[in-house]
Amino acid sequence: MLDQRALPANECVIEARDVATVADAIRSLAVRGAPLLGVVAAYGVALAAYRSTAVKPRAFLRDIGAAGRTLIASRPTAVNVAWAVGRVLRAADTASAGGPPVEAIRRAVLEEAAAIEREDRDSCDAIGRFGAALVPERANVLTHCNTGRLATAGAGTAQSVISTAFEEGRHVHVWVDETRPVLQGARLTAWELTRLGIPMTLVADTAAGSLMARGLVDLVVVGADRIAANGDVANKVGTYQLAVLARHHHVPFYVAAPVSTIDLGTPTGDGIVVEERAAAEVTEPLGLRIAPEHVTAANPAFDVTPARLVTAIVTDRGVASAPYRRTLRRLLGRDAAWVGST
Amino acid sequence: MLDQRALPANECVIEARDVATVADAIRSLAVRGAPLLGVVAAYGVALAAYRSTAVKPRAFLRDIGAAGRTLIASRPTAVNVAWAVGRVLRAADTASAGGPPVEAIRRAVLEEAAAIEREDRDSCDAIGRFGAALVPERANVLTHCNTGRLATAGAGTAQSVISTAFEEGRHVHVWVDETRPVLQGARLTAWELTRLGIPMTLVADTAAGSLMARGLVDLVVVGADRIAANGDVANKVGTYQLAVLARHHHVPFYVAAPVSTIDLGTPTGDGIVVEERAAAEVTEPLGLRIAPEHVTAANPAFDVTPARLVTAIVTDRGVASAPYRRTLRRLLGRDAAWVGST
Repeated sequence: MLDQRALPANECVIEARDVATVADAIRSLAVRGAPLLGVVAAYGVALAAYRSTAVKPRAFLRDIGAAGRTLIASRPTAVNVAWAVGRVLRAADTASAGGPPVEAIRRAVLEEAAAIEREDRDSCDAIGRFGAALVPERANVLTHCNTGRLATAGAGTAQSVISTAFEEGRHVHVWVDETRPVLQGARLTAWELTRLGIPMTLVADTAAGSLMARGLVDLVVVGADRIAANGDVANKVGTYQLAVLARHHHVPFYVAAPVSTIDLGTPTGDGIVVEERAAAEVTEPLGLRIAPEHVTAANPAFDVTPARLVTAIVTDRGVASAPYRRTLRRLLGRDAAWVGST
Repeated sequence: MLDQRALPANECVIEARDVATVADAIRSLAVRGAPLLGVVAAYGVALAAYRSTAVKPRAFLRDIGAAGRTLIASRPTAVNVAWAVGRVLRAADTASAGGPPVEAIRRAVLEEAAAIEREDRDSCDAIGRFGAALVPERANVLTHCNTGRLATAGAGTAQSVISTAFEEGRHVHVWVDETRPVLQGARLTAWELTRLGIPMTLVADTAAGSLMARGLVDLVVVGADRIAANGDVANKVGTYQLAVLARHHHVPFYVAAPVSTIDLGTPTGDGIVVEERAAAEVTEPLGLRIAPEHVTAANPAFDVTPARLVTAIVTDRGVASAPYRRTLRRLLGRDAAWVGST
């Protein structure tokens, strides 16, 4: 896994040989981005499957179940981890019917992880196509956090909307919110957009409102860590205030995410536990102390944007708009029965 | 002058022996904070007065006039610099009537600078008294940037409101916005409030909206770099979006500033030139590179909050509320004729 904490200065690779290392990479934000977390978690379970020395299916399933729980606990707000772990474990369950040798179940686990990766790549392309249709011929797009190739197994979510519009020939310029405290915008999105040759300007998070007031933002597009059944969106802290600002300035506010991010088991955003992360992310960004010693800092990693502030949700199966409770369920279709039940 | 760029890690002093050093300290943000800039600029002219080798009043006035222009050019958005320079130069003009020796004019210049400092200290106390009356018995106060002892010659502006309420026995807790890009909140306000023993929690600028959504902010109080005749407020970038967020959440949004910040010569905020500062403040905070090399960044240092989003303006002469065009003029009283004419 590329250690995203070291970007853009260094390109370091983490080689995980056990689940603890994978869970630690998730917990420490070495890997981040909701869809990528799903892919990483799925391969984390596959890694456990290949590390398990169990010879009986039941013991084997116990081993990979424990690995799944470790991975889910490493990032409680990210529904994709639970979703991917659940999917891989179900594949193992299904494969174990009829009592085949452990090796067959193991292969089924790896195949399911590979399928999640492949589907995520396809998802990104689909999100890009559906979302690009919402981008005008000339557009200043504001985005927050990182939702690109570093956050997914493909072209990204919100960023796929931007890059697809760009590839389709639209004149796109991106305002990249630096995204304090972890600076995913400054470190990762700026790095990715530069590599893709997409025009961009980095700004401090404090500048977003005044850019909108000056008419310099045509749309906002962000990703999502979890979408509740009613369309409330949990995403990187700072997303909510962008949504309020967009509404105030009559700027469309789009959320782009694969349907795997939709959690029908969470009726509204009120049910989403917001992870409080280490104060040091605020007081010592990238190891540089910016605040006095012993200062108290709060660091809610996410916030919840109510559905009423979301103009539309762009998924890999199409674009949903209000009333979300109905439109999201419709997009999920046959998956509605089990998505979120993990 | 205390070099505020080095805080909180180091307490370094800049000893200015010429106007260029003072102007440089202003330009580089070694000294900042609207009222303090006025005091520093006034003493900058006084320094020029003592450095001038002119023996004739006319040449002397030319020397200090040139010094004044240098100082004004060092920070175009800060009206207090122009205001203080104008005031000291007028004192010199007045003192030169009747053709006294240069030494007498020189003394008048220094006395005027000292008067500006003394009045600013008194102003801070008055702002604190008027503003504290607006703070409830138990209050979570959100503030932005630094408006304390480091920003003034006294207890501060917005921060004087907070510290006076605290000294009067109210249960105050302060949410300190870190205030990217220059991090005045994290570096300076956190340092000052800790020294004053006032309970506080530092947060990234991205958290302000979600704090309000969770009902954790009872009021917002900020300073001002310039207040237009209609009550539009230019202040540190990020202020505007806090005002929008406060309005959305029905949280009172107060601006605290001495009447010297009111510029009747600027009819509305549209006339305020927003300083675009070096991109490196965004890409390399405190010298630490957080974005890839060669990335484009925008860095508007200020923004303008329209008067309709301001619940009240707390000044050293009382509290003004809408319609500001009338109430601000009334507070200025006899000064209305010349304030802003510089």
